[in-house]
Amino acid sequence: MAVGLKIASKITSVPGIKLAVAKAGIKYNNKNDVTLIAINAEAHCAAVFTQNKFCAAPVIVAKKHLSEAQPKYLLINTGNANAGTGDDGIARAEKSCHALAELTGVSANSVLPFSTGVIGMTLPDDKIIAVLPAMVDALQENAWLDAASAIMTTDTMPKAYSKTLVLNGENIVITGIAKGAGMIKPNMATLLAYVATNANIEKPLLQMMLETVVKPSFNSITVDSDTSTNDACILIATGKATLSINNLESHTAQVFMDGLREVFIFLAQALVRDAEGATKFIAVRVEQGRSEEECREVAYTIAHSPLVKTAFFASDPNWGRVLAAVGRAPVDDLDVQAISIYLGDVCIVESGGRAASYTEEQGLEVMRQDDVAVKVVLGRGEASATIWTSDLSYEYVKINAEYRT
Amino acid sequence: MAVGLKIASKITSVPGIKLAVAKAGIKYNNKNDVTLIAINAEAHCAAVFTQNKFCAAPVIVAKKHLSEAQPKYLLINTGNANAGTGDDGIARAEKSCHALAELTGVSANSVLPFSTGVIGMTLPDDKIIAVLPAMVDALQENAWLDAASAIMTTDTMPKAYSKTLVLNGENIVITGIAKGAGMIKPNMATLLAYVATNANIEKPLLQMMLETVVKPSFNSITVDSDTSTNDACILIATGKATLSINNLESHTAQVFMDGLREVFIFLAQALVRDAEGATKFIAVRVEQGRSEEECREVAYTIAHSPLVKTAFFASDPNWGRVLAAVGRAPVDDLDVQAISIYLGDVCIVESGGRAASYTEEQGLEVMRQDDVAVKVVLGRGEASATIWTSDLSYEYVKINAEYRT
Repeated sequence: MAVGLKIASKITSVPGIKLAVAKAGIKYNNKNDVTLIAINAEAHCAAVFTQNKFCAAPVIVAKKHLSEAQPKYLLINTGNANAGTGDDGIARAEKSCHALAELTGVSANSVLPFSTGVIGMTLPDDKIIAVLPAMVDALQENAWLDAASAIMTTDTMPKAYSKTLVLNGENIVITGIAKGAGMIKPNMATLLAYVATNANIEKPLLQMMLETVVKPSFNSITVDSDTSTNDACILIATGKATLSINNLESHTAQVFMDGLREVFIFLAQALVRDAEGATKFIAVRVEQGRSEEECREVAYTIAHSPLVKTAFFASDPNWGRVLAAVGRAPVDDLDVQAISIYLGDVCIVESGGRAASYTEEQGLEVMRQDDVAVKVVLGRGEASATIWTSDLSYEYVKINAEYRT
Repeated sequence: MAVGLKIASKITSVPGIKLAVAKAGIKYNNKNDVTLIAINAEAHCAAVFTQNKFCAAPVIVAKKHLSEAQPKYLLINTGNANAGTGDDGIARAEKSCHALAELTGVSANSVLPFSTGVIGMTLPDDKIIAVLPAMVDALQENAWLDAASAIMTTDTMPKAYSKTLVLNGENIVITGIAKGAGMIKPNMATLLAYVATNANIEKPLLQMMLETVVKPSFNSITVDSDTSTNDACILIATGKATLSINNLESHTAQVFMDGLREVFIFLAQALVRDAEGATKFIAVRVEQGRSEEECREVAYTIAHSPLVKTAFFASDPNWGRVLAAVGRAPVDDLDVQAISIYLGDVCIVESGGRAASYTEEQGLEVMRQDDVAVKVVLGRGEASATIWTSDLSYEYVKINAEYRT
């Protein structure tokens, strides 16, 4: 029931990147559940990870390996998060990296492991290791959509996006995939997302680019306020094109950053559109705040409110719940008299109360749409922020009540 | 579907307090929706109100009146919150106070108005005013349970509790009522709660007592993280008994405070037991924190997690979600290796991972109960805190999707 989301019809491969998927039997439903991404030797990689203090074993191992070596392989399983698994979980993540390293003749720390699925179960690393030989043989450039499907958990459709820029007369491609539909409130990081470009960008600049585009994309969405233990986002520059980007000043760099931002925002919004049980895609924009941070606080308070989310599910313009959420946001000395609230283009609250011009019919008209915008104008500054979220439906409860049962 | 909650069979009236209820036609279902509480002239009143910045018109008026005069009447309507209604809402709240004042020969600022219900609708003050004469005639000491029913909104049963202490050979009664089942995450205040005693306690001490007992009761519960615009809690000491309490040092004062705390905690827990759609009553206790505040932050993060709440609804011991919530709680430098997590008496997490002794059967056994305890031991200090919450069910979504429709 993804809201306004279609499966990508064409994804452009990225020279230097090869992918393969396999059924290892970790997921209960006999679907592809292991993904292997091979990265060319000259590539550079940037990464951000979850800030959850109970971060999963693969996150711990991937961070360690990243600090030691240039990644050659990303090894991703779904169906089991290998989180809350202590030292044994770390040993099993390491073991799968070692097996792949032995098979391919690279060092074990050039393999980064990723897991997503149920927390607290023992990782069946033997099942992953068993499918590695066939996966290595199957690696090919044109398997991005297969990978986008294989990394899914409760997602109902794969998320993938390609952007091709012509820079200095050369095709520069940016292609990415992502997964995640619940336990989504990324914190300075993301869920699982893998994005690659054929441009040549050294690691420090690539890391800066990643952190820049993650904030207005993956770090600006929430489904249910729950930050995962396993979030990770990888940005790879394979350097197969002749274009080198060495700083952010040039026009070329700015065009590239715009393209990168477009890919990241598409993928982030796709996660929300396919959020567990989603029937609405809600953009919460807060303007005229004193700082971007306070705008984000107000927007997240609205986006996390179960009462706001159930009202949207019911297509009920119960704007009092939005107002109550603004009023409890952790922002000091808000002057409610200065605040206006809009549903779509309709002003519903001004001067601390219902707008004189507002009619319930106007609110219902906006609420009938699948994509709904809420705008809060704080009237006390120049900053703004947008957060995207979904509604709270029976289906969300059903999915999460039945997830393991 | 209240969890382990019965309607009180006997409520002891408080000399000095008289109550009456009426059907004014504000609620759609032809139920009592206005409550009048008359307070004797010698009484003292303490109060706490919502910290929501969009506080409702009656909260603004009640605070003003409280600062000006000794309350003689509390005038409460349900079905309409008179919140987000701007200056017009304040005028209507004032108008109903004036009408009652004229009828009873008191000053208008000795009437405190309270409202609860839908936010953003115009208060039909004329309907309230129309029933006042009959209510004034009907005032009687023995109507606490009627009042407990009349102040309900989505509550499925009235909440009332009496405690009688024998102090210095005299019966000292503490009786209270409360309402609230959704939009419940009180912030230094409560929902609607009215508690009275016949003891004689001056206002400053009474206020201190109220603030002391509100923290471990109404300020330690959450249903859905949404702080209402209309929360208010009133504590009245009628002084009809000969007992005077002048400080908190004496043994008598301590016994009284224990009784007061018992009444407040009963009422607060009753709100959670009757929370919208609740099928479980969950006590989240966090121990060995560096401060009570950080224990409360961790407990609230667990209690607000939709994923934890849906797992409880499913009676699924999916403890990984509790672990993930602890890991994202806003507490600096948590050492996950030092953390243990218990479900009931069963240790599920130790040293950052699944406890070696834990079996799924043990978790299921605990989850089969209606009352479930979660305990997190942070292993870094001496402080502790307990928060009570409910689960997240289809019924919660249904109630809140259909609330206005």
